[in-house]
Amino acid sequence: MKKLEIAVIPGDGIGKEVVPVATKVLDTVAEIHGGLKFEYNEFPWSCDYYLEHGKMMPDNGLDILKNFDAIFLGAIGNPQVVADHVSLWGLLIKIRREFEQSINIRPAKFFKGLKSSLVNPNDFDLIVVRENSEGEYSEVGGRIHRGEDEVAIQNAVFTKKGTERAMRYAFELAKQRRGHVTSATKSNGIVHSMPFWDEVFNEVKGDYADIQTASYHIDALAAFFVTRPQIFDVIVASNLFGDILTDIGGAIMGSIGIAPAANINLNGKYPSMFEPVHGSAPDIYGKGIANPIGQVWTAKMMLDHFGEQELGQKLLDAIEDVTNEGIKTPDIGGTSSTNEVGEAICSRLKEVC
Amino acid sequence: MKKLEIAVIPGDGIGKEVVPVATKVLDTVAEIHGGLKFEYNEFPWSCDYYLEHGKMMPDNGLDILKNFDAIFLGAIGNPQVVADHVSLWGLLIKIRREFEQSINIRPAKFFKGLKSSLVNPNDFDLIVVRENSEGEYSEVGGRIHRGEDEVAIQNAVFTKKGTERAMRYAFELAKQRRGHVTSATKSNGIVHSMPFWDEVFNEVKGDYADIQTASYHIDALAAFFVTRPQIFDVIVASNLFGDILTDIGGAIMGSIGIAPAANINLNGKYPSMFEPVHGSAPDIYGKGIANPIGQVWTAKMMLDHFGEQELGQKLLDAIEDVTNEGIKTPDIGGTSSTNEVGEAICSRLKEVC
Ligand SMILES: CC(C)[C@H](C(=O)O)[C@@H](O)C(=O)O
Ligand SMILES: CC(C)[C@H](C(=O)O)[C@@H](O)C(=O)O
Repeated sequence: MKKLEIAVIPGDGIGKEVVPVATKVLDTVAEIHGGLKFEYNEFPWSCDYYLEHGKMMPDNGLDILKNFDAIFLGAIGNPQVVADHVSLWGLLIKIRREFEQSINIRPAKFFKGLKSSLVNPNDFDLIVVRENSEGEYSEVGGRIHRGEDEVAIQNAVFTKKGTERAMRYAFELAKQRRGHVTSATKSNGIVHSMPFWDEVFNEVKGDYADIQTASYHIDALAAFFVTRPQIFDVIVASNLFGDILTDIGGAIMGSIGIAPAANINLNGKYPSMFEPVHGSAPDIYGKGIANPIGQVWTAKMMLDHFGEQELGQKLLDAIEDVTNEGIKTPDIGGTSSTNEVGEAICSRLKEVC
Repeated sequence: MKKLEIAVIPGDGIGKEVVPVATKVLDTVAEIHGGLKFEYNEFPWSCDYYLEHGKMMPDNGLDILKNFDAIFLGAIGNPQVVADHVSLWGLLIKIRREFEQSINIRPAKFFKGLKSSLVNPNDFDLIVVRENSEGEYSEVGGRIHRGEDEVAIQNAVFTKKGTERAMRYAFELAKQRRGHVTSATKSNGIVHSMPFWDEVFNEVKGDYADIQTASYHIDALAAFFVTRPQIFDVIVASNLFGDILTDIGGAIMGSIGIAPAANINLNGKYPSMFEPVHGSAPDIYGKGIANPIGQVWTAKMMLDHFGEQELGQKLLDAIEDVTNEGIKTPDIGGTSSTNEVGEAICSRLKEVC
């Protein structure tokens, strides 16, 4: 029996609604598998927790998390109650950083049964490999002067090691896919970090003669996500550019509520973390209508991570079948509830397995 | 007779094809007006010029330009022959900076007769006010170490003055439009410059009680451009975010070849510059099929700048009518040439005026 200990952090808002659906789906997968078992430990760390304790998680939070096989996160943040950067840097970004989850993998594809926002979605199928530990999201910076003369300075820090690591990951991934890597740059406008990014990309690509490459400035690349997403296979992007592209990825699929993500620790020292791209959506929380697909697809990425790609693929197929049958939450044009979608996915899985 | 002296820089690639079309349209407008005359002085500054002279423009280029009423630019850059940052920082960005063109105005709207890339374009009509002189496009930064330990550092610099100026411009513009301003931020991930951006936004909005506001993180905002662009009126964005959003703006209109822009000098010391969002498109240069609408719509923005809003509106209507009649270049699904589109716009203008 392969037993996997999962730290579950439902977090805020709809995170609390979609996480239980996704763990139920995971249990169904385990049952079908026969030799797999998920053990969940749930932690109530969230903005509510912050309001009570003055912090997003206990001081020994990371110590508690570090021995789990993975972290399964719902959504963090509720700007009405806790300032964004306080909640996010106190939990989500803290875990990404401290657990050296240096890569964020975020797929987007034309999804059967989903109305893409695009006239011409044409079966796109891409993965963004986002650098997840440095770049534009740096704590280096500050302010000088006050009043009319105030200046804020923000340092983006790109290391050779971090940049190269993300790029090599992208090239390795492309080998298992359609053999194409696109670099997201902006070296025509951002003249220190981005020419460096280009240099490292050119160096790394020298080691992958069989992989085709392209390099686009982020403005053009973002536009291509809308006009011709099918030209992309694997895209490697900085922390900020990856963030922007993957929300557009959600939009062209038809809803940001679909998009999954995996924060991968590559050195094996700490657990990886699985969390969908969407946020806590306080506006629809409590209505039972949150789309669980982002969280369930994220669970599929966790299955892949544990070497269960075959069952992972079956899960993804089941999600698509259910969507295609019209069992959908309102955000994607259906009338089903969060739980109904989850149950339909479980039934479908049992049918095909 | 109102005589306007225009410095014309066709630049590279399709810039050389669409600029003559746009000046012909401007002449037609002047003829209709009766009391208006454009005098063009053409400068061949471009990548070709660079190959011959080792620079993008002569050393006294800015001195030559500074006494014109406006600069009308086609496109700059041909990465096959001159490195992007060399060509752009030697001309386009140099002019923006040295001539204190601190605001870049870039509209996007649902365009009659154009197939938007979106299933649901729903009559969107927005303007991005892009900070054009500082922010992420800063020359401050550099590298330390070499080899495996190399680090590139890029400083984004946001001044109170520059940030506030862009925001006030946006609020003033919103007053003349639908009274709504959206701020593009990313203060949840970028913790020095973007919280500063938010602070200044909150301060400025205090002076505009009648204007509605919203603030979205750039990732969500970019996605909303795809899923519901009709929620936006005026958007104020940093240099980088404005750059990215306006390419998406082109994409949702149906082609980046449509999107216009104006680089505005606000202190009256230097001319403003008018240049479309698209680049030099070396791949289609010389075929006579480049879409002139971006350049002609940019000419319309120049008319507005010179106080000729009424004729400007007629010109925009004429562009839409011609597009709607199906007289379109191939990039937007037609079979017409660059010149045919230009001539159709001129004829249409004469008909309605
Ligand atoms: C060419 C490049 C430097 C420029 C920019 O990023 O400003 C362009 O993309 C634009 O939008 O005008
Ligand atoms: C919440 C925010 C800090 C985060 C990010 O920008 O990384 C989110 O947008 C994401 O994409 O995971």
